[in-house]
Amino acid sequence: MQAIRFPENPLLTPKDVPPSRPDLKVIGAFNAGVARYGDEVILLLRVAEQAAATSETVGVPVYDPDSGQTTVRKLDRSDTAYDFSDPRAVRRADTLETVWLTSMSHLRVARSRDGRHFTVDEKPLVQPETPYEAFGVEDPRVARIGDAYYITYTAVSGYGVAVGLAVTRDFQRVERLGLIFPPENKDVVLFPEAVGGRYFALHRPAPRGMGALDIWIADSPDLQHWGNHRYLFGRRPGMWDGQRIGGGAVPIRTDKGWLVLYHGADADNHYAMGAALLDLDDPGRVVARSREPILAPETAYEMNGFFGGVVFSCGALLEGDRIRMYYGVADEAIAAAEFSLSDVLDSLGDPAGAVERV
Amino acid sequence: MQAIRFPENPLLTPKDVPPSRPDLKVIGAFNAGVARYGDEVILLLRVAEQAAATSETVGVPVYDPDSGQTTVRKLDRSDTAYDFSDPRAVRRADTLETVWLTSMSHLRVARSRDGRHFTVDEKPLVQPETPYEAFGVEDPRVARIGDAYYITYTAVSGYGVAVGLAVTRDFQRVERLGLIFPPENKDVVLFPEAVGGRYFALHRPAPRGMGALDIWIADSPDLQHWGNHRYLFGRRPGMWDGQRIGGGAVPIRTDKGWLVLYHGADADNHYAMGAALLDLDDPGRVVARSREPILAPETAYEMNGFFGGVVFSCGALLEGDRIRMYYGVADEAIAAAEFSLSDVLDSLGDPAGAVERV
Repeated sequence: MQAIRFPENPLLTPKDVPPSRPDLKVIGAFNAGVARYGDEVILLLRVAEQAAATSETVGVPVYDPDSGQTTVRKLDRSDTAYDFSDPRAVRRADTLETVWLTSMSHLRVARSRDGRHFTVDEKPLVQPETPYEAFGVEDPRVARIGDAYYITYTAVSGYGVAVGLAVTRDFQRVERLGLIFPPENKDVVLFPEAVGGRYFALHRPAPRGMGALDIWIADSPDLQHWGNHRYLFGRRPGMWDGQRIGGGAVPIRTDKGWLVLYHGADADNHYAMGAALLDLDDPGRVVARSREPILAPETAYEMNGFFGGVVFSCGALLEGDRIRMYYGVADEAIAAAEFSLSDVLDSLGDPAGAVERV
Repeated sequence: MQAIRFPENPLLTPKDVPPSRPDLKVIGAFNAGVARYGDEVILLLRVAEQAAATSETVGVPVYDPDSGQTTVRKLDRSDTAYDFSDPRAVRRADTLETVWLTSMSHLRVARSRDGRHFTVDEKPLVQPETPYEAFGVEDPRVARIGDAYYITYTAVSGYGVAVGLAVTRDFQRVERLGLIFPPENKDVVLFPEAVGGRYFALHRPAPRGMGALDIWIADSPDLQHWGNHRYLFGRRPGMWDGQRIGGGAVPIRTDKGWLVLYHGADADNHYAMGAALLDLDDPGRVVARSREPILAPETAYEMNGFFGGVVFSCGALLEGDRIRMYYGVADEAIAAAEFSLSDVLDSLGDPAGAVERV
């Protein structure tokens, strides 16, 4: 599998993104949903921002639904009720449960004519606005269905990690359509068209007890209400996707089936991208699957950064036989690579792989 | 709050239920959905069965979707890969994650003319039949909507704890309508009629990371597809429902609002029943809530048994001003108590209680 990384990589980094407020600093511009809009390529970036920390305090940005404002709460590092050892989160000292995040993400549009050089909007397109988004909105996927663009995103708050749906027609105004999956769930990708009269989505529940971080499929009459949940395919212990997997890009229709680009992490938390093929008429049936990743972290910008060793795609475009996959690198910046579609399809093997049976 | 327990309590115990197979023993007949059907009261019991254990082996009943058979797997107690210290489950020795259950539940009909003396069907109405039910089907609720009875139940397997929907019109034949909530979720009760053109359900997600064991509400156009998930009300740390809560009986329409009988457990895992009142036209709005339980474990049959100190209702009937609540006791048998509806409504207080705000 030959991945041709763009020579311009990384395409955007935190320094290319103006902060949403003067008291916040952009630390990530990554994991972007992707769409063609008119003659532009749109990246809907996840932009992570952090408040200033000092040796004495940690700043925690939290949206308050009562006031409608995001405020930065200052926590004293000497407060023994909390554990500050993970720079990404503040945890309870006794149980090590996450209480707050040290950064907050919003969604920002970047636009390009050539798909390589992007201009970032001054203002966020989607920022926390509901109680379920108090800690941020993350990892958007954009599915064009008809002339509307549906955005699925991770809504993070003390209520848990859930999945919101929003819709835009112009990438300027957004309407929210509620939480479509309750906690804990993420990595939701909508199929770009109905199949047999129903819409489909991949999702990735995170159960508290039994069950693993595997990909499920559900269907819907209207994109807002989901049912008929079925396990689709799972992590493969011992392999590159042995610890957890989740949907990546919006599925791509090909002659051979629905091509799903998904991420997998191994036991060392290295995130790579692989592919699976689903039956065109029955997306609940897995036809084939990568045994090896189609892209694994390798370059300096993939190996080093906020969280190194991560490639994580939320969107791709098909042009003829070329797949152009945009992907977050090191939870910090955004990059792209191209593949031959037929090479990717030819590389797929046995759908079962080493899937654990229950 | 005066609860009048039936003098016949417990109404049914494991010895009243013939096992589904000669090699299994009934250890629980509890947590029953409730319905009026013709001139009968129906209890749809959760019946738990165990395989014989010996000093050398533990028997684990598992449904195999490939063969369509339930087989009892014998595990050697000396196998160091597993931990057998919890009599309810077999866990991995290294992580203490649950791998199998030592009992399997199915759903069984019991019928009565007077609501006090029940005859139990010879055969199960619902038993494991899908991969998501490999470890059993549990804790049914029955909502009559039109002339159909919709059964929501917990589907347990290695895929996690999810929620199935099935429908019957005669309590003899059942049609499954798929999983309506993915793992991890349980305690789902359907409202018995549409409100403002939409169906509603209470559900209780169990997220892996942030978030607590609280009650959410969702809506649906068709009972099979659910969206618009919202947090409804939560556990109240330090109170009788401080550790976890979940929906109990199918909500009862009253002049004052939808009466929800729900269970709560405290930090010592004592399960009691309380009530909440939801707005008639907007069930997403909590109007009032019990500060004290309406029923807490007290009698010998509630305090002692398979898991003592538990009262847990999955169904109730309203007759004039009397609420007759059926409830599982000690995860082993089924009992009933009556309340005055107006007493229960009068006992409710501030809806917020000590709810934690995010």
